[in-house]
Amino acid sequence: MAGTVASLALTLCTLLSTAYCYNYSTERFRVPVDHFSFAVNDTFEIRYLVNADHWREDGGPIFFYTGNEGDITMFAENTEPKYLGYLTSQQALADYADLIKYLTANQTEYNKSPVIAFGGSYGGMLAAWFRMKYPHIVAGSIAASAPILQFTGLTPCEAFYRIVTSDFEAASSECSNSIRKSWKAINNVTSSDGGRAWLSSAWQLCKPLQKQGDVSALKDWLIDIYTNMAMLNYPYPTNFLAPLPAKPIKVACQFLPDSKQEEKPLLQSLFKAISVYTNYTGKTKCLDIGEDATSDLGERGWDFQACTEMVMPMCSDGRHDMFEKKAWDFTQYSDTCYKKWKVRPQPDLAVKIYGGKDISTTSNIIFSNGLLDPWSSGGVLRSMSTSVRAVIIPEGAHHLDLRASNPADPTSVIEARRAYQYFISTWIKQYRKQQTKKKRLLSRNTTE
Amino acid sequence: MAGTVASLALTLCTLLSTAYCYNYSTERFRVPVDHFSFAVNDTFEIRYLVNADHWREDGGPIFFYTGNEGDITMFAENTEPKYLGYLTSQQALADYADLIKYLTANQTEYNKSPVIAFGGSYGGMLAAWFRMKYPHIVAGSIAASAPILQFTGLTPCEAFYRIVTSDFEAASSECSNSIRKSWKAINNVTSSDGGRAWLSSAWQLCKPLQKQGDVSALKDWLIDIYTNMAMLNYPYPTNFLAPLPAKPIKVACQFLPDSKQEEKPLLQSLFKAISVYTNYTGKTKCLDIGEDATSDLGERGWDFQACTEMVMPMCSDGRHDMFEKKAWDFTQYSDTCYKKWKVRPQPDLAVKIYGGKDISTTSNIIFSNGLLDPWSSGGVLRSMSTSVRAVIIPEGAHHLDLRASNPADPTSVIEARRAYQYFISTWIKQYRKQQTKKKRLLSRNTTE
Repeated sequence: MAGTVASLALTLCTLLSTAYCYNYSTERFRVPVDHFSFAVNDTFEIRYLVNADHWREDGGPIFFYTGNEGDITMFAENTEPKYLGYLTSQQALADYADLIKYLTANQTEYNKSPVIAFGGSYGGMLAAWFRMKYPHIVAGSIAASAPILQFTGLTPCEAFYRIVTSDFEAASSECSNSIRKSWKAINNVTSSDGGRAWLSSAWQLCKPLQKQGDVSALKDWLIDIYTNMAMLNYPYPTNFLAPLPAKPIKVACQFLPDSKQEEKPLLQSLFKAISVYTNYTGKTKCLDIGEDATSDLGERGWDFQACTEMVMPMCSDGRHDMFEKKAWDFTQYSDTCYKKWKVRPQPDLAVKIYGGKDISTTSNIIFSNGLLDPWSSGGVLRSMSTSVRAVIIPEGAHHLDLRASNPADPTSVIEARRAYQYFISTWIKQYRKQQTKKKRLLSRNTTE
Repeated sequence: MAGTVASLALTLCTLLSTAYCYNYSTERFRVPVDHFSFAVNDTFEIRYLVNADHWREDGGPIFFYTGNEGDITMFAENTEPKYLGYLTSQQALADYADLIKYLTANQTEYNKSPVIAFGGSYGGMLAAWFRMKYPHIVAGSIAASAPILQFTGLTPCEAFYRIVTSDFEAASSECSNSIRKSWKAINNVTSSDGGRAWLSSAWQLCKPLQKQGDVSALKDWLIDIYTNMAMLNYPYPTNFLAPLPAKPIKVACQFLPDSKQEEKPLLQSLFKAISVYTNYTGKTKCLDIGEDATSDLGERGWDFQACTEMVMPMCSDGRHDMFEKKAWDFTQYSDTCYKKWKVRPQPDLAVKIYGGKDISTTSNIIFSNGLLDPWSSGGVLRSMSTSVRAVIIPEGAHHLDLRASNPADPTSVIEARRAYQYFISTWIKQYRKQQTKKKRLLSRNTTE
């Protein structure tokens, strides 16, 4: 399941790079490589983007988008390997804290601005954790599709792929059954040289399948495509990780109406189905299974994080899901990580740092989850308190709520956004009240 | 005021080393040198002491003493200098988190134990910050005499020495006036070779005063002694930083009944006064002003911390306090730090990390302060919310409340300890309720 650790990496939020046009200026800010010691004194510049279209002077709020694994990768790939070890969630949060402190310093135009953090996917995790660790810097957070419970011991490893499966099942059970059967068909067909040649040609692979390892890579690549289609199962056409029609799973499943097909016809149908993802524009010349489904995000950084603190166990049983049976094998996972990065994953680290399910003491966080989104398996689906709220979007895929509004939006996401407005205005009021109270209470906090 | 950065270092809590006998076993636990990166993979062993005298099986609470600058110094002084940069409050908290996670892991006898942190002085700061940053690991904290507001921009730099002064003033105004006048007397007398020789002899200095620098050192040393006497102005005899009688300031001030004395007689009286601190046992052969008043605490580690994140501005004006006028000069402070440690202090770092006065969102912390204690200048003296409470002990010196009970205890400290009992039992109940609720709410948090 090596391909799937990259899945979260695929989700760099479209917010700042979508077809909808946003204005922003690109700024730079210097931060320490290591916020947590005085042993490493190197610094580097982070980029940040500023959109002031809706800026309200004299204390208007700052909406602080907590980035994603895509941006931070820039850093990881453009600096020396010796710095890669500092690519951690806590260093990222400390970067954000530095930046906000700088932006809201006394002399600035933002010095009375409450800060609302928001983000989706890994960025949503950062938004939530930012509020948990720096409540004095962030008044509240919208954490969209943030799988903060997708860690060892918190969520059954089967959950993720069951949701992917149920998305295909919802289109038609013939569809999910076709995929379920396809693995054996692939195994059988590719067991001979002739079969591998046939499939390479039928699927227009850029590099023909030569050996068994190539077949494994093909299957991992397929798993990623199904996963991405589930994440991106939006109600209108999008161009996020790939150009896609509205409801791509429904479109793809039209090519898989009969799970009882013979193996080769089944694989021919499957090719048409996955082409909805790989070649919706009709311009793809050949399928490159070596290239990850979203290679442009530069997911090496995320892969490193998945090999250190972001260990998210996943597995499939082939019965309650449409995938081949595959156990979660931490030892193998760890060995692969060590081979690639010379690090050993620390599966309990994120829970130790951020609390796992023990987050009842935090406040002012909304966790939103679309139930079409496989990452909802690790999401917070129940409100923890009056100010740590779960918002469920039954018809939503991966952080649909953070996208621009669209005529095809389901009612649930419109209502979710209304709820955010309400909570954000509450947090801003609370912030202003607290600032006043702080001044009153603590201005006298000096002893003569 | 170079000597005073060490003052906080002087306060290693007596709790585990007092004349009262406590039983404990000494254990060791291996932690990473750097909790916040994957670049440094070295580890080292921390010591921890376990007292199980009052341990109640099956879920009794763990009272976790958050150490002090004394213990952590062991590490700083016994390992390579390249590791010194990792001597930070956040690394210490992460050590504690690791240790508690290890102690309360599933298989252990402590797996149902809520953890209550407590500490005094810097240890009190750590106790408070521990709850702020790891509320999922600590159910609540008693932060005794914890000057978390003694940072740049939060507390006037004059406050600290005004409290020292008022402690002497409370004994008698002749006493504080004598000390106020003594600086000029020292300056005048030591302006000649003969005068320096006279003072060296009259005060039984181990090394005679040779040059002007020696006189500065002498004055810094005196400032530390007055400060320590204020911190240790306990109502019964103690042996914490030095063997002392009950109410040492009152005892010392008996030797300073007349501030109008001529300079040399005044300095002779002063010698008797400070001897209450330096030679209460009568066994001190000579006064070593090179040695810090509490050198045995190994304060090099604290000095490094004061030169990095623990920058606590202090100053005196000579009018509202009994010291020579001395401004807070950050540039000079920074240069001294750079000369000693090759680091530059970061005066805003602690506030950025921990919030300064913006701590309204935290919960379950008691900040206690004795008003005789100069460190109360940077303490939280007003309750922030129903669960972040300030407890004032008017007759208390530096974390008197953490000491064993004593017949001479003032009512205020007895009442404070009762309040702690009440709050701790509330926190424990809350913890148990939360654990039950968590199990109920989140056991269903998996999506089929």
